[in-house]
Amino acid sequence: MTVLGFWDGERRYLARIAPPLAGRWTWRTTSDAAELDGRSGEFTAEPAEPAGSAESDRSPGHGVVRVNARFHFAHEDGTPFRPVGATVYNWIHQDEALRTETVESLSAAGLNKLRFMVFPQAGGYVEHVPELMPFEKTANGWDVGRPNIEFFRRLDSLVADLGNRGIEADVLIFDAYDRGAFGLNELTEEQDAAYLRYLVARLGAYPNVWWSLCNEFDQMTDRPTERWTRAGELLAEIDAHDHLRSIHNWIELYDYNQPWVTHASIQNGFATEALGRASLYRDVYGKPVVLDEIKYEGDCPERWGQLSGQELVDRFWITTSSGCYASHGESFVTESGSLHIVEGGRLRGESPVRLGFLREVLEGLNVPGLDPIDKWDDPACVVGTPREQYLVYLGREAPAEWTFRLPQGHGGDRLEVGDAFAVEIIDTWNMTRTPAPESFALTDVQRNDAYATGNAPLSLPEGEAIALLITRVPSAA
Amino acid sequence: MTVLGFWDGERRYLARIAPPLAGRWTWRTTSDAAELDGRSGEFTAEPAEPAGSAESDRSPGHGVVRVNARFHFAHEDGTPFRPVGATVYNWIHQDEALRTETVESLSAAGLNKLRFMVFPQAGGYVEHVPELMPFEKTANGWDVGRPNIEFFRRLDSLVADLGNRGIEADVLIFDAYDRGAFGLNELTEEQDAAYLRYLVARLGAYPNVWWSLCNEFDQMTDRPTERWTRAGELLAEIDAHDHLRSIHNWIELYDYNQPWVTHASIQNGFATEALGRASLYRDVYGKPVVLDEIKYEGDCPERWGQLSGQELVDRFWITTSSGCYASHGESFVTESGSLHIVEGGRLRGESPVRLGFLREVLEGLNVPGLDPIDKWDDPACVVGTPREQYLVYLGREAPAEWTFRLPQGHGGDRLEVGDAFAVEIIDTWNMTRTPAPESFALTDVQRNDAYATGNAPLSLPEGEAIALLITRVPSAA
Repeated sequence: MTVLGFWDGERRYLARIAPPLAGRWTWRTTSDAAELDGRSGEFTAEPAEPAGSAESDRSPGHGVVRVNARFHFAHEDGTPFRPVGATVYNWIHQDEALRTETVESLSAAGLNKLRFMVFPQAGGYVEHVPELMPFEKTANGWDVGRPNIEFFRRLDSLVADLGNRGIEADVLIFDAYDRGAFGLNELTEEQDAAYLRYLVARLGAYPNVWWSLCNEFDQMTDRPTERWTRAGELLAEIDAHDHLRSIHNWIELYDYNQPWVTHASIQNGFATEALGRASLYRDVYGKPVVLDEIKYEGDCPERWGQLSGQELVDRFWITTSSGCYASHGESFVTESGSLHIVEGGRLRGESPVRLGFLREVLEGLNVPGLDPIDKWDDPACVVGTPREQYLVYLGREAPAEWTFRLPQGHGGDRLEVGDAFAVEIIDTWNMTRTPAPESFALTDVQRNDAYATGNAPLSLPEGEAIALLITRVPSAA
Repeated sequence: MTVLGFWDGERRYLARIAPPLAGRWTWRTTSDAAELDGRSGEFTAEPAEPAGSAESDRSPGHGVVRVNARFHFAHEDGTPFRPVGATVYNWIHQDEALRTETVESLSAAGLNKLRFMVFPQAGGYVEHVPELMPFEKTANGWDVGRPNIEFFRRLDSLVADLGNRGIEADVLIFDAYDRGAFGLNELTEEQDAAYLRYLVARLGAYPNVWWSLCNEFDQMTDRPTERWTRAGELLAEIDAHDHLRSIHNWIELYDYNQPWVTHASIQNGFATEALGRASLYRDVYGKPVVLDEIKYEGDCPERWGQLSGQELVDRFWITTSSGCYASHGESFVTESGSLHIVEGGRLRGESPVRLGFLREVLEGLNVPGLDPIDKWDDPACVVGTPREQYLVYLGREAPAEWTFRLPQGHGGDRLEVGDAFAVEIIDTWNMTRTPAPESFALTDVQRNDAYATGNAPLSLPEGEAIALLITRVPSAA
C-alpha cells in the first residue's frame, strides 16, 4: 500500500495506515526532502475485533465499508453495513458542547452515517461564525500549503468520535455554499488538489470515512463537470484505503456511471414519495443508490423542510422497498434561528427513533440487501432475495388483510410448491414486530407468481404503516 | 462531408449523400482501387420542400431528425418531430403483400416511426423463413464482403417507402434473436464493422433513418459491453449524415451517457405504468428518452403481450406527461400463429388510432416539447414550458372537476398575476378536444404554485381518460 504522508505542525510528519490484514508490516518512506526520505521500520497489526463480539455492532472494528452484492454495502470483514444516515452540514464548525450533543443524539436514535462538510457553510440558517479555518490566510486568499493543524486535529478527533459510536463519516470535501463568504470556493484546481491530498493523507486511515466531493455540486455553476471528474479520479488514485466515493447533486445529476464513483448519492425527494421510482436509478447505475436528501422533517418555511415525521419515515420505507438507501435531515427552526441540518444539537422530530428501528430491521436481515424481485412487473414492488427473504411495504395505510403472494422475478432461485415462509408484521411507525401466527406454504406456483392458497389472508392492523418481512423456513415434512 | 462508397453489384459502385444545403456541390473520390480513385464531378441540390407546404406534414422533405431542446427531436429544417412509433421486428423478411399492408396500416393509424431489424429474427412466433439473406454464404458462415445486392436493394426501397409516408425507419442493426438459427450473431467484430460500414454507406442518405445497434443487446450474453461501445463509436465516426444513434436493452441498461449515444432507447414498461417514473431517466441522461418497449396490446400468453388498448394508450399519455416518448407494439396471435410485432400486417388493436390522435395533439403544440415543470415537487407531474403551454394528464379516470393550478417550477419564466390561459379538455380515448368555455386568469401567484381563484373549477367528463392542454392567451386588458 502506498499512503501519502502529511505535515502535522512544526517538525512533525506523519503517514497513517489502516492495515487491511493483521500481522507484521514493514514500511519505508520516499520524499523529495532528504530528511524524510528512505526512513523505514516495521509494526505489528493486531487482529480486528471479531464480528459478533459483544461490542461489534457499534464498533469500527469491521473495517472500511465498500460496495457489496452490487447494490449494497459491507465492511471489509464481510459484515453488511445498512446505511440509515443523518445530515448536519456545518457540524464541525459548532462549539464543542453542540458537537457532542449532535453525535450523542444521532447515536441514541441509532443513525449510522453522518454527512457533514469540511469547509464552513454560509447562507440562510447559519448562525455561527466558524472559530477555526482549514488554512492560513494570505493577503488575498488561502495558503493551502499551510493547513491549520488545530482545525485538522479537531477533524481527526470528530471522525474518530463518530467511528467509536459506529457512525460512518460521509465527508463533503468541497463546498458549494461558501458563496464568497470565506473564499474557499475560489481555490484553483491546483489548490483543490493539494487540499484533497492532505485530507486523504489525514483521514484515509479512519475506517469509517466515506468521501463525497460536494453537496449540490452544480450550485457551483462556474465549475465545469470535467473538473469534478478530475477531482474524483485523483481521489480514487491517491486513496490507498479505497473508501467509498461519490458526489451529490442539486438540479443536474452527476454521471454516476463514471468509473471513479462507487455509489450514487442523489438528491431527489420526489423519487422517494412513491414506490417504483428510486429503483430506476439502480438499473441505470448498477451501483448502490443512496438518496442523500429527500426533504427534511421540520417546520421551516421552505417546502424542502416541512415533512411530517410520518412522511419522512414513509419515504425511508419506500426507498428501502426500492432497493435503495436514504438519509435523514431535520429542519425545525431552533432557538438560535438555525436548523438541525445546519448546526446539529438535539433531535426534535418523531422520525429519528423510527429510523433507528428501520436500521434494526435491516440489520436483522439474512441477505446482503433488498433487491427488486421483479423489477418490470410487480405493482407491490417486493424486494429481497428470491426464495430466501422478502420485504413488502404496504404504505402508510395498510389494508385489513393481505393475501400471500410472492413474485418469481428474473434469475435467482425459482419458488416451488411446498416452500414455506414465516411472515413478520412490522409496524413501521409504532415500532412493533409481530410474527404471523402460522407459516405460509406455497400451493400454487405459476410462471410469474406464487400463492399459498391453503392459508387464509393475513389480518393486519388496518390503517397503520405496515411492512411485511417474509423469511423462508423449513418446509413441513 | 465524407461519405463512404459501396458496391452495388457487378461493376456498380455508389456513394450517396443527402445534401444538408441546397446549391452547387462538387465531389471527388478516394479509393485504394485505382479505377475508383480520383473521380470527381458536381451536382446541384434543389431546395427541400418548404415546411408548411401542403405535403409537408408527411414528407421526408424536412431533413434528418436530430436532438432538439435537449430532450426532444426536430428535423434539420427545425420542424419538431414528435415520435409516436411502432415495432415490427421481422418486417422486411415478409412477403411483399404483407410488407405493404404493414406500412399502409401504420400510416393509416398515424404512427410515425418503425423499429425493425435488418437481420432475420428466429424464435417464438416467427412463422416465415426469410427468402433473402444479407450476405453470400460460405462453407462455414457468411462473407460480409459479398453483400446480397437484392437484399439491400429491397432494404433501400423499404426505407424509402417509409420516408414517403412520413415514417422514420428505426433500423436495428445487429440481432440478438438469431440464436444460432442463421449464424448472423456469430460474425466477428471485424465482420460486424464491415457490415456496419456497408449499411451506413447504403442507408445514410435516406433522411428518415435512425440507428439502433440492437434490440435487447444484453440477450447476447457472450458479447462484452465494450464491443457495443466500439460499434457505437464507429457508427458515430462514419455516419456523415449524423443520424440519431442508440441501443435498446433487455435486463441491463446500456450507459446512455456515452458520448456516441444521441438518445436513450429503453425497454421498461413498468416505468410507464405510473406518473413520476420515466422522467427520472431524463435527469440521468440529459438526452431524449424513448421508451421503446412498454409491453404490447394483445392476447398472447406472455405477460408482455396482454395489455388492453386502454392500458397501452394510458401508458403513452403517462410517458408523454413524463417528458418522454414511447413506441407501440401489438401482440394478438394472428391466423398464422405469429404476432404483429414479428411480421406486421393489419393492426387489430384499439390503441393505434388513439396513438395517432396523441400524435396530432403533440404536433399541435407550440413548444419544442413537454418538460416536467417542477420535477421535484409536483404530484400532478405537469409538463410543458413555463408561462407558455402545459399538459396535465389526469389518468384513466378523471375526477368530475379540476381546479386550475400551475406549478412555477425551476428556471424559466415565472407566472404573474393576470396571466391568462385557455384550457382544452382532451379525451384521450374518445379522441375529442373540447375547449373550456372560459379562460383562466391567475389571481393568486405563490412561490411554488399559481391559482385562478376567480374561476370556478372546470367540469370534466368524470371517469374518462382526460388530459388538459393549457395554453397562454393574451391577458384581458
